[in-house]
Amino acid sequence: MPEEEKTIKDFEQLTGLLKKKEICKRTVVVWPEEDHTQEAILQATHEGFISPILVCSERTKKIFADREALQAVTAENPEEASRIAVKIIREQKADIIMKGFVNTDVLLRAILDKEHGILPRGAVLTHITVTKIPEYPKLLFFTDAAVIPYPTEEQRKAQIKYVIDFCHAFNIDCPKISLIHCSEKVDVKHFPYTDSYNKIKKETESGLFGKCVVDGPLDLKTSCSTEAMKIKNICSPINGEADALIFPDIEAGNLFYKTITLFSHAETAAVLQGTLAPVVLSSRGDTIKSKFYSLALASLISK
Amino acid sequence: MPEEEKTIKDFEQLTGLLKKKEICKRTVVVWPEEDHTQEAILQATHEGFISPILVCSERTKKIFADREALQAVTAENPEEASRIAVKIIREQKADIIMKGFVNTDVLLRAILDKEHGILPRGAVLTHITVTKIPEYPKLLFFTDAAVIPYPTEEQRKAQIKYVIDFCHAFNIDCPKISLIHCSEKVDVKHFPYTDSYNKIKKETESGLFGKCVVDGPLDLKTSCSTEAMKIKNICSPINGEADALIFPDIEAGNLFYKTITLFSHAETAAVLQGTLAPVVLSSRGDTIKSKFYSLALASLISK
Repeated sequence: MPEEEKTIKDFEQLTGLLKKKEICKRTVVVWPEEDHTQEAILQATHEGFISPILVCSERTKKIFADREALQAVTAENPEEASRIAVKIIREQKADIIMKGFVNTDVLLRAILDKEHGILPRGAVLTHITVTKIPEYPKLLFFTDAAVIPYPTEEQRKAQIKYVIDFCHAFNIDCPKISLIHCSEKVDVKHFPYTDSYNKIKKETESGLFGKCVVDGPLDLKTSCSTEAMKIKNICSPINGEADALIFPDIEAGNLFYKTITLFSHAETAAVLQGTLAPVVLSSRGDTIKSKFYSLALASLISK
Repeated sequence: MPEEEKTIKDFEQLTGLLKKKEICKRTVVVWPEEDHTQEAILQATHEGFISPILVCSERTKKIFADREALQAVTAENPEEASRIAVKIIREQKADIIMKGFVNTDVLLRAILDKEHGILPRGAVLTHITVTKIPEYPKLLFFTDAAVIPYPTEEQRKAQIKYVIDFCHAFNIDCPKISLIHCSEKVDVKHFPYTDSYNKIKKETESGLFGKCVVDGPLDLKTSCSTEAMKIKNICSPINGEADALIFPDIEAGNLFYKTITLFSHAETAAVLQGTLAPVVLSSRGDTIKSKFYSLALASLISK
């Protein structure tokens, strides 16, 4: 097997792959008026996998004037910066859009604008994270920690499709996708989506998502620990080695994100999918590293 | 302050307190036909904080015949064992009930039986866990990881009351209780319980729960990290130092339980509350330590 087809197992291998493939994506950054975003951009530019276009204040433009690798467009405020950045994506002058010191609401309004936005009609906007948890031997993808409160069956299927695309980009040949629930029982009365999980499984078997394994309802332990699976006497093709977790709702997804970053020393990268270009939507609490990794993820998966 | 009033900060201090107070609770064990339950009972008996009554098979009774500290009653099967154990609690011949190698459904049926069960009319049955996570400097209580799918406002208030009782038993003078959500915004449309959180906060301020702090909606990071709270520009009396987390639904609570045990090296103890006596309802996947700590927790909080 040629080296570039090896499965990516951590973030170092991800940036290594970007370098090897000589990937460099044009990245428009909305209002990068704070240190963490600036630092992540500079690092990613230095690594060579992005070429940034800042939509920033006059002051920030001046600060970076001596850096040849950085293009800058000035805007008066975050609202204008959001509109300009979205326009740049529509005109295909950039491949990735990254949020800086802007309220998420403001940027999302520009992204979702029916006339001038970048979400195609009928596309499902969702949030996908990939994490390296020290206690887990591989990367783990999950959705949705930030956008869809209670996914419908159609939205869930879109989430699965995106996640499978991501897994393929990471050279995971046959991704194992776990549909998460608090137990392994289908319970139509209290948890109608467990029934929907069943339908999705059947559609998977008839080839809807291509080469992959989808199973559920499964709980986190059964999904991510072969030992736990055996103790519970469960038999699943996931075999405690899930590549991706589809969470039942945003409370579960968001809590998982925050628990592993706060209590499990997890490293994370995250983007929005569904838009014309991946959106790096890190929040103020995220580390420079997390923003840097998110840029790396976006670079790999942007078309 | 006398030593016994010091706040309990880990499980070692918990068993220390039980010894100091010379607490020893009569514990009826339902069908202890497997190693982990037996080992936990033997350890807790040896430590002196329980005195067990096994409702077991003839075979298990014989195995323990030489142990003077162990009483045993024989039963034909898990169903009968469940009914006998519940009857022992009703007759006030035991203070704690512990599940052994029985399906949860079977034991719950006996517990919830309207005529012969041990859940008083109108009482709220819920699951409470206390955990020591290495990355968090104190014990953390949370509910509900196992019983109530989507708590109503009344159920949530019952959960808060139980949790406050637990905190007091651990000598936490003014417990800080965080009402968990994926963000800090009240959103009546998508998350009606965030509005209910507001009402509960107001009732707390008018003294409903006694001396305590209740705040929410707050996310996990804002609840458990002062730094994260500051970065997000949030001002909360919890101050990133929550003693207890009230989760919006079972998916969130269950996922938190499983994430911290699988990925954060957390130790846990858990019981059901609402019944005439605390129920230790560990599952097959739980460690001996976790069952032992659950017995310690039940011993401290049983009346």
